[in-house]
Amino acid sequence: MPIEDSTPQFGKYDLIAELAKCFPIDNASTVVGIGDDASVIDTDGNQTVTSTKVFVEDLHFDLTYVPLKHLGYKVVTVAITDILGMNAIPTQVTVNVAVSNRFDLKAVNELLAGMESCCETAHVDVVGLDLSTSRKELIITVTAIGECEPSRLATRKGASENELVCVSGDFAAAYAGLLLLEREKKVFEVNPSAQPDFTGMDYLLRRQLKPEPRLDIVEALRREDVQPTAMTAIPDGIAAAIMQICRASEKGCALFEEKLPLTELAFTTLKDLDIVHTVAALNGGDDYELMFTIRQADYEKIKNVENVSIIGYIKDREAGYKLITGDNVQVDIQAQGFKRA
Amino acid sequence: MPIEDSTPQFGKYDLIAELAKCFPIDNASTVVGIGDDASVIDTDGNQTVTSTKVFVEDLHFDLTYVPLKHLGYKVVTVAITDILGMNAIPTQVTVNVAVSNRFDLKAVNELLAGMESCCETAHVDVVGLDLSTSRKELIITVTAIGECEPSRLATRKGASENELVCVSGDFAAAYAGLLLLEREKKVFEVNPSAQPDFTGMDYLLRRQLKPEPRLDIVEALRREDVQPTAMTAIPDGIAAAIMQICRASEKGCALFEEKLPLTELAFTTLKDLDIVHTVAALNGGDDYELMFTIRQADYEKIKNVENVSIIGYIKDREAGYKLITGDNVQVDIQAQGFKRA
Repeated sequence: MPIEDSTPQFGKYDLIAELAKCFPIDNASTVVGIGDDASVIDTDGNQTVTSTKVFVEDLHFDLTYVPLKHLGYKVVTVAITDILGMNAIPTQVTVNVAVSNRFDLKAVNELLAGMESCCETAHVDVVGLDLSTSRKELIITVTAIGECEPSRLATRKGASENELVCVSGDFAAAYAGLLLLEREKKVFEVNPSAQPDFTGMDYLLRRQLKPEPRLDIVEALRREDVQPTAMTAIPDGIAAAIMQICRASEKGCALFEEKLPLTELAFTTLKDLDIVHTVAALNGGDDYELMFTIRQADYEKIKNVENVSIIGYIKDREAGYKLITGDNVQVDIQAQGFKRA
Repeated sequence: MPIEDSTPQFGKYDLIAELAKCFPIDNASTVVGIGDDASVIDTDGNQTVTSTKVFVEDLHFDLTYVPLKHLGYKVVTVAITDILGMNAIPTQVTVNVAVSNRFDLKAVNELLAGMESCCETAHVDVVGLDLSTSRKELIITVTAIGECEPSRLATRKGASENELVCVSGDFAAAYAGLLLLEREKKVFEVNPSAQPDFTGMDYLLRRQLKPEPRLDIVEALRREDVQPTAMTAIPDGIAAAIMQICRASEKGCALFEEKLPLTELAFTTLKDLDIVHTVAALNGGDDYELMFTIRQADYEKIKNVENVSIIGYIKDREAGYKLITGDNVQVDIQAQGFKRA
């Protein structure tokens, strides 16, 4: 049974939960183990939060349209977003790069320059760098390390009924950007002299190629003294994220279609591409925004935080995972498993 | 210029040092950055030590003769050996596995069972597990996390003239085991009905397929209150390890050929295979032992630690890196760069 076919839906996370059973936790310093955005280790004072991400060429990125410098920036964003998804502050990353002889030193330097650029933005140090050879594909591994006061840590578990579901930023723009890039790639394959026309699409391409780490949100939550009751990163769309919070918290939810934050540009571009924008927001992925739940009492405080939208609320478990559409119909929210690995 | 051809010798480490220049260190919590076995982060109390290792099928391991359970054990040993190489105690690991549909769930379970077995041996928790798909090769990433009292931390830098060079365990057995396995693989390719004959070779195969983490050494150093002045893991043979300590410490060394610890079995097997045993000990690799330097005043204490050999001493930088042969000839020690990635 191939791994990716193990279950039709949400298979990866079920599989990880199943496999994790063979790994008991022994050390007292282990605070959070397998099954959240990152692991948490107690070090007497602050907690150390770590997460490792692996990126394989042609599975996670396509070098025909991804510049190496952007790729470097993005892999760091992706890795440290898992730290932010625990309401922790990223502090360090370590990097492993496996390259074949298709890549010269200049190419590796481009990649690392992109990584450093994102690290500068996020005030993160690169403290480890290892190189190895690969047969063909470029393989990049980024381990992100962060710190968190124990009282600030937020896992996927902890959401209670009637709490508000918040997300940062906007959605589906990165997915729209990906569709545009894939479309132009196909044009190029047929007609190599064709020049891509991305006029006015800068924002969509930037969201796909060079997503920004949402350090501002984690800092704002501290500044406004809002402690999320549950929290997670959103790498694979809103649907997978809310289902992870609900499952870990043993709750249900209702999200409002009209509250899902999308830019006008994403909306119109997806319409031109014949894609339902709500589906793209729920399941498109690559947004790297944050989702968190807050107590209703924190509503006044969260209004002061820029770039945060309240998209629904937590219900009891039996309510399931529901989207309330614009015409007031309830539909089931479904995650898409793990396409694009 | 392909990466692996960049310099004829010691190329990988020079290259990493060069590339590391684009990564300045900003955070006060960063104690040790790029260029040692692991990175070190200060967390008010103990220090957190982390290292990430990537293992790619057919580059780092060959599944035609490596059982998945042994592979799981070995990758954990390799990763936590970098923590031990800082004189720190490994506490947690996180694991990423990228599999293609060549592997079924049973295969993944075998691999994880091997990881868990090594984690049990070393009292380490698996706190992160992520799966993704790969196109063909199995790709395994292990991030090891450990802790260390600041006064116990030992980096590659710090060795002084006349200090003693110590190593744990014995050498060249893993390399001899690899040669036997490769030889039988070739026999099998010519005659698939041939049965490998490894009678009496168990120790060599075990050293190659299932190396043990040398937690005992790090614990013994604490018990005997010996603080190494410099320390490193030995993944790529004695030569690369001593050169790393000498370079970081800006010193030279003299090692004695007759003091290099080899088992009788490794010695005779290498002789049968027409391999010079000293070369195998210096450059064979895959030993995953530890090297450290100690003050002469600690000589009496180190004699109480089992499985430690004194193989030479530190000299001034101008002395270079010398091996004193059995017939009292001085030869230059040379590292082999990074074969087997």
